Amino acid sequence: MSEIIGETDRGGEALFDDSVLRSLDLSRCKLVARGQGYPYLSDSLRARPLERGDFANGYLSLLSQLTRVGDYPREKFEAHFDRMRALPGVYYTVVVEDVDGGRRVVGTATLVMELKFIRGAATRGRLEELVVDSEYRNLHLGSYLLELVTELCRGLGAYKMTLDCKPEVEGFYSKYGYTNEGQRYLTQRFHD
Amino acid sequence: MSEIIGETDRGGEALFDDSVLRSLDLSRCKLVARGQGYPYLSDSLRARPLERGDFANGYLSLLSQLTRVGDYPREKFEAHFDRMRALPGVYYTVVVEDVDGGRRVVGTATLVMELKFIRGAATRGRLEELVVDSEYRNLHLGSYLLELVTELCRGLGAYKMTLDCKPEVEGFYSKYGYTNEGQRYLTQRFHD
Repeated sequence: MSEIIGETDRGGEALFDDSVLRSLDLSRCKLVARGQGYPYLSDSLRARPLERGDFANGYLSLLSQLTRVGDYPREKFEAHFDRMRALPGVYYTVVVEDVDGGRRVVGTATLVMELKFIRGAATRGRLEELVVDSEYRNLHLGSYLLELVTELCRGLGAYKMTLDCKPEVEGFYSKYGYTNEGQRYLTQRFHD
Repeated sequence: MSEIIGETDRGGEALFDDSVLRSLDLSRCKLVARGQGYPYLSDSLRARPLERGDFANGYLSLLSQLTRVGDYPREKFEAHFDRMRALPGVYYTVVVEDVDGGRRVVGTATLVMELKFIRGAATRGRLEELVVDSEYRNLHLGSYLLELVTELCRGLGAYKMTLDCKPEVEGFYSKYGYTNEGQRYLTQRFHD
């Protein structure tokens, strides 16, 4: 019985099964030319799916370098994580952890998949929350995460992947195949 | 036994439970000023969730007025529908049917909800596939659908709702509270 519980617990630790990342063809990525693959970028930097325990590894603090996160307790994080994990095939949040730094999470990107009735009943992806810790810049972590989730989206069979970004980082994304096709991006805010 | 199967079948007909639409406060909407509510816009036009049987009611033909849909069989439509329905709280596709026109689907809009770890573990929404049959223009169906799914998104507790659109319809969306905040919208296409 305890073994079964153990299995269940381990199964619930990752937001998604990383075999989908391990089986990706990354040959078209610049990260491969830099000697980076999945899961290891270097001896000390390792990519993996977001885990339920990453509340303790600085995931929210990392996100707060991108936008407002707010201060909320572990229980709320875990409940949100469980809701996302209960929607298989939707959320793919990848993190990079510093293995030498006490499992500190130093980079992240999220791919969100969406089912469409158009284009022969297709899927498409979106990039969300790409952020790298300010102490870990110039290590190509942003490029690594972008290429990895882009190839994941392609590997999952999507016909396209989109993102919204500030004008000043459009040049970065254009280096990795993202094009401004002239669509406008509009927002309505209900509350803060 | 047959009764149980009957219940299950009826339960599987709608993409989501429309009680969430029936309980919405629509008082801030122009559609109310026009005498339109939910579910009836007029004696002959009725809004409701997308149903599994809408393959036969012209839903894909309607979508093809917006973009490429392709020709695929009912079985594929139903399998896709079932995948979406198995992800509760994600897909809210609303259609308007012409009750006098053999249940013909003449307008649609989709709200897609996304869970975020930012902003206190929040949710946000996106507008997808807003389209009105060319024979049913000038009846405010587009405005109706936009206001309805926007209020649904607000009612579900999201902090914002976004959309991407062609520049020529930005003015339409701005009348309903959508603002261009300067974000760029970039696309990478993997295949047609």
